Amino acid sequence: MKLDINRHATTPIAQQLEAGIRAWITAHGAGGGRRLPSIRRLATTHHVSRNAVIEAYERLVAAGLVRSRPGSGFYVADNAAGLATQSVTTNGLEEVTNGLWGLFNANEHTLKLGCGWLPSDWREGDDLTHAIRQVARNSRSGIFEYSTPQGPLELRSLIQERLRPLAITADAQQIVMTGGGSHSLDLLVRMLLEPGDVVFVESPGYYNLFGLLHLQRVRVIGVPRLADGPDIERLEALLTQHRPKLFYINSVFQNPTGSTLTPAVAHRVLQLAEQYNFKIIEDDIYADFQHTPTTRLAALDGLSRVFYLGSFSKSLSSSLRVGFIAAPSCWVQRLVDIKMLTSISASRFAEHVVTTMLQNGSYRKLTERVRTKLSNQMAMALTLLKDADWEIYTEPAGGMFVWARPPLDVSPDRLSELAHQWDVSLSPGKLFFADHQPTPWLRLNVAYMQDPRAKSFIEAVR
Amino acid sequence: MKLDINRHATTPIAQQLEAGIRAWITAHGAGGGRRLPSIRRLATTHHVSRNAVIEAYERLVAAGLVRSRPGSGFYVADNAAGLATQSVTTNGLEEVTNGLWGLFNANEHTLKLGCGWLPSDWREGDDLTHAIRQVARNSRSGIFEYSTPQGPLELRSLIQERLRPLAITADAQQIVMTGGGSHSLDLLVRMLLEPGDVVFVESPGYYNLFGLLHLQRVRVIGVPRLADGPDIERLEALLTQHRPKLFYINSVFQNPTGSTLTPAVAHRVLQLAEQYNFKIIEDDIYADFQHTPTTRLAALDGLSRVFYLGSFSKSLSSSLRVGFIAAPSCWVQRLVDIKMLTSISASRFAEHVVTTMLQNGSYRKLTERVRTKLSNQMAMALTLLKDADWEIYTEPAGGMFVWARPPLDVSPDRLSELAHQWDVSLSPGKLFFADHQPTPWLRLNVAYMQDPRAKSFIEAVR
Repeated sequence: MKLDINRHATTPIAQQLEAGIRAWITAHGAGGGRRLPSIRRLATTHHVSRNAVIEAYERLVAAGLVRSRPGSGFYVADNAAGLATQSVTTNGLEEVTNGLWGLFNANEHTLKLGCGWLPSDWREGDDLTHAIRQVARNSRSGIFEYSTPQGPLELRSLIQERLRPLAITADAQQIVMTGGGSHSLDLLVRMLLEPGDVVFVESPGYYNLFGLLHLQRVRVIGVPRLADGPDIERLEALLTQHRPKLFYINSVFQNPTGSTLTPAVAHRVLQLAEQYNFKIIEDDIYADFQHTPTTRLAALDGLSRVFYLGSFSKSLSSSLRVGFIAAPSCWVQRLVDIKMLTSISASRFAEHVVTTMLQNGSYRKLTERVRTKLSNQMAMALTLLKDADWEIYTEPAGGMFVWARPPLDVSPDRLSELAHQWDVSLSPGKLFFADHQPTPWLRLNVAYMQDPRAKSFIEAVR
Repeated sequence: MKLDINRHATTPIAQQLEAGIRAWITAHGAGGGRRLPSIRRLATTHHVSRNAVIEAYERLVAAGLVRSRPGSGFYVADNAAGLATQSVTTNGLEEVTNGLWGLFNANEHTLKLGCGWLPSDWREGDDLTHAIRQVARNSRSGIFEYSTPQGPLELRSLIQERLRPLAITADAQQIVMTGGGSHSLDLLVRMLLEPGDVVFVESPGYYNLFGLLHLQRVRVIGVPRLADGPDIERLEALLTQHRPKLFYINSVFQNPTGSTLTPAVAHRVLQLAEQYNFKIIEDDIYADFQHTPTTRLAALDGLSRVFYLGSFSKSLSSSLRVGFIAAPSCWVQRLVDIKMLTSISASRFAEHVVTTMLQNGSYRKLTERVRTKLSNQMAMALTLLKDADWEIYTEPAGGMFVWARPPLDVSPDRLSELAHQWDVSLSPGKLFFADHQPTPWLRLNVAYMQDPRAKSFIEAVR
């Protein structure tokens, strides 16, 4: 093994070693079980410190590419080839996190057409500021103390009521407060999955989840997402080959296609879940953008094998970090235990603020206004895209996202360049596919499309 | 296998099955590899649903006690015996979480002599309320938007300055904001440890960590904590038998003994870390309770193999969930990636509030007042305990905790009963030992000891 190490680069030696060994494994180590050079040997042949080599090997072990056998040395992991060639590639984690970093690091004046949240100038400050001041003034416990491990009963009861119009019958005891949608997913992934397990995801689907599953070292299989939900035919075919523990579904205004699950598909998915005994995570974090409720998996299933996720990050505030899980009763205790061991509790202050706004009705009114705005914006965006001859995957009935591609046959990289010229940032379409294949499809956030730069960009790639 | 199932109990059948199989494994399955009854067989012989059996097996697999071999059935895991007899017992997780639940669920008027936070009436609201109102009024991004993955640079720079008097030289780029001390630990444990790895902890030590390590399925070995830090002789002996990846040390006002690491022990620990190549987590969440800084591991080591943890939960607010990690440079990117995948970001609002209080000096003044109060309280508590002939493990120089035991030869259960009679709640001493052995030693929080009920209880068990 001869790695290319540059002692004068700003990248630490350990990271260079890691990248080099990773590349070597991809090129040579496909079989797994192959022995890697000893720490001493690598250090000597490359004139680097033993600690740098140890560091590099540790990171590769942590990434699941290398196995350490005590007293014997380091070997290419059996599943390294699998990790490299499977749906989520070995550097799937980096691709996802780089994508996210890109969004967070973009110049604040750049038009974030590809991002997953509402524009800052859409957010209405008054009601939230009022609630924050009220909690700060009236609740000593709210500003000082840990919350309870499961979250305040008062808030969980209010959420229970909010689930009723969706026909989801959850006891407050089945609701666990979390620090937002990603935290909910993380708790569930840790509780339900083992390394090596198979998980079905929707493809295109939520890319941060792909990275999270990669971190947990599970096998990720993409099920195509159609206009009415997951592709049932393909799902049935995949179930003859794989035994998933879990299927993750974003029911309403799916990220990124904007499509919504129909009752027939929901019913069929649950039948298959029964037959093949897998659990379902129903991610419904865009629920409050919906005017008239449609069928939820959790409603049909009665929270028996469905874990239902909700959040206040998309509608109210991404800063406060408040979300929840409605879980099958028998899993609640373990879920709360894991939450407690990993974070003690969520923010009592943030929970009190949300409680206040649910109680005084300001949250309801705020989401009504956002819904109306989003509907208008969606209509405008669809017209704009159609007029510019973009292909629309499916026409969303609401929400933030439309999944579309330009008529021009242009590479994804060229598309990003063009966007950059118009001071527009995109989320690369490939991030949304479980196999990270390059694609000209893009997730567009309609809330940003009234900006003239959006129009210019969209018309430029016609 | 004949399990005792009560169909009329309120405990779900799946949980009863899980407990029954767990007990059976403890009693019969010590060797590992032993085959367990099939799902169908257990369901038929016990007249329960197959789903309940599946649920029970899944939970046992998740707990590491059972292995599933696809197409072949369920077997006692090879390490089930290890898990059962090792330092952290199979139900270590439950013991820890039950202990925590106990603290959170205690009647709010009960005197929480065993708890790990300041009394509500010690908390000063004005400065915090003021900062909260200021952020709510002035910062739209603060109330609405995600924070950056690593946390605001402004706050990280302020923390960098706060570390300087401790002689810890960290660049702001090495500091990662988290949702508090437990969240910091969780991120590090996930990044650095694999199932089966060995971790050294201090014993007695921080019990929530023992549960977290159990969750990660690592082997936990306790190193006795003495008045000047970890027992170096014992550490050296243990290092001849085990190869730990990590050693967790609570440097200042250790939880639960209140003792503080001396420079000589710190130096020796780092020499051994170098020699045996393990990393160190230096938990310094009580730092702001200290009048005059003492030697930190991170200061001697220059953040090379030490990960340093700080928090605002103990001094300012447990509700806001703000903590940080100062990490070796080469680990920062991966740490932030894991944070991002599992939670997107921490609360920008809470980060802004802490920033405000660090900038306007109110945090410094507040901690000065708390320090003085705690010193007085510690002196009073030590006098009270000595007068009542309690044995004091070591006299803390400050902080919240004293580790003491009553002169009366009384069982831990009887001790809790007596406390209950005086309306006092305790944290059982055994929770603080890695092996959970019963002990009459107790962690007492001196901030609660001016209450007459504390005096009554302490004098009652004389």
